[in-house]
Amino acid sequence: MIQALVFDVFGTVVDWRTSLIRRFEQFGRDNGLTADWAGLVDDWRGQYQPLMNEVRTGKREWAYLDELHRVALEQLLPRYGLTDLNDSQKYGLVQGWHFLDPWLDSVPGLTRLKKKFILATLSNGGLRLLTDMARYANLPWDAVFSADIFRHYKPDPEVYLGAAALLDSPPQDVMLVAAHNYDLKAARQCGFKTAFVARSTEYGPRQTHDFAAESDWDYVAADFVELAAKLGA
Amino acid sequence: MIQALVFDVFGTVVDWRTSLIRRFEQFGRDNGLTADWAGLVDDWRGQYQPLMNEVRTGKREWAYLDELHRVALEQLLPRYGLTDLNDSQKYGLVQGWHFLDPWLDSVPGLTRLKKKFILATLSNGGLRLLTDMARYANLPWDAVFSADIFRHYKPDPEVYLGAAALLDSPPQDVMLVAAHNYDLKAARQCGFKTAFVARSTEYGPRQTHDFAAESDWDYVAADFVELAAKLGA
Repeated sequence: MIQALVFDVFGTVVDWRTSLIRRFEQFGRDNGLTADWAGLVDDWRGQYQPLMNEVRTGKREWAYLDELHRVALEQLLPRYGLTDLNDSQKYGLVQGWHFLDPWLDSVPGLTRLKKKFILATLSNGGLRLLTDMARYANLPWDAVFSADIFRHYKPDPEVYLGAAALLDSPPQDVMLVAAHNYDLKAARQCGFKTAFVARSTEYGPRQTHDFAAESDWDYVAADFVELAAKLGA
Repeated sequence: MIQALVFDVFGTVVDWRTSLIRRFEQFGRDNGLTADWAGLVDDWRGQYQPLMNEVRTGKREWAYLDELHRVALEQLLPRYGLTDLNDSQKYGLVQGWHFLDPWLDSVPGLTRLKKKFILATLSNGGLRLLTDMARYANLPWDAVFSADIFRHYKPDPEVYLGAAALLDSPPQDVMLVAAHNYDLKAARQCGFKTAFVARSTEYGPRQTHDFAAESDWDYVAADFVELAAKLGA
């Protein structure tokens, strides 16, 4: 019996790419700057897995996601001709990850699912980031599980098992909802139930994977509203 | 500038005593049992600090609050002539701590405060307990900080400083709201702002302390609605 649903957030619940490109465009207008904002956002997200892997493999000391975003941004700015940003501007851009817009079905679907299940994040974001985002986007979480609670990044098993322990539930009573097959695979290896929701525009024109379920996940749904229907919520 | 309010929960947000006595009375009716339910509840709560102190001083291995509640209940039942309860009945009574009613001002006050501040628990309860309670009592937390996240009980500084770290805030930008002077004292020692709300009926006829602020806490309010007004929320 599923007691709790835990959600990947970036890409699964919120559309980070569209939100960030819009923020950069506004930033450009406000500061009289032009650049390939979409390319910058895509490259920024491209640094996400490599930098987390440095932490996961011990090559880099523990750092929460805002710090990794800042490191990656510093590396990328010169490549986009942006060499004169001050600290406050860089801080503002990194903060952009705290204020991302949800996919259109996210809030209606979560609202239905909340009536039947405990809902929580299970994200590589930091707790403050996820809390800011929930307040901004009206995401009705019952609890927030973040990488900095566990000091591990997904797909490390410590994250999934740590969340199940805090929920005081056996892993098989917890289901991960995610748009990424690698995340569901790791969750299943920890004993979790799994639900895949395709977000085929998440990465824009560069998207190469996660267009469809790559395994027999327990549930596959087109969006959160369909997932709620399939779960009787 | 205060960014987040964190709340003690048992006694400060919810009226554990009235809620539990009512639950025991119902349990008695359902099972044809009579006992001094109020005395049992008061003695049960009386074991709270001693058992937590055993954990805090290393005399007892880490155990989350449900386990401590269970240990204390087992000790008390024979004293109240209740020697024949089965596991499921004991589990049900321990679960009672997950489903406590809020003071009448709690939800209206929190709802106002949430518009201006991040709201979180900072409780010795476990994460599942606090999550169950929030769903039951409609407590609008943005995040849930629990003893089992930090594997420490208040007033250990790890709890206060751990919450500030996860909020990515300097301690002076976080305020503890509590009905217990000892809790506020520990929070202040960690650099937190402090707000006292008297709950003078929390312990019933046995209450001996916490009728009033015992220090110059940053805010003192009669209830959460008055606190919201004082904070301009």
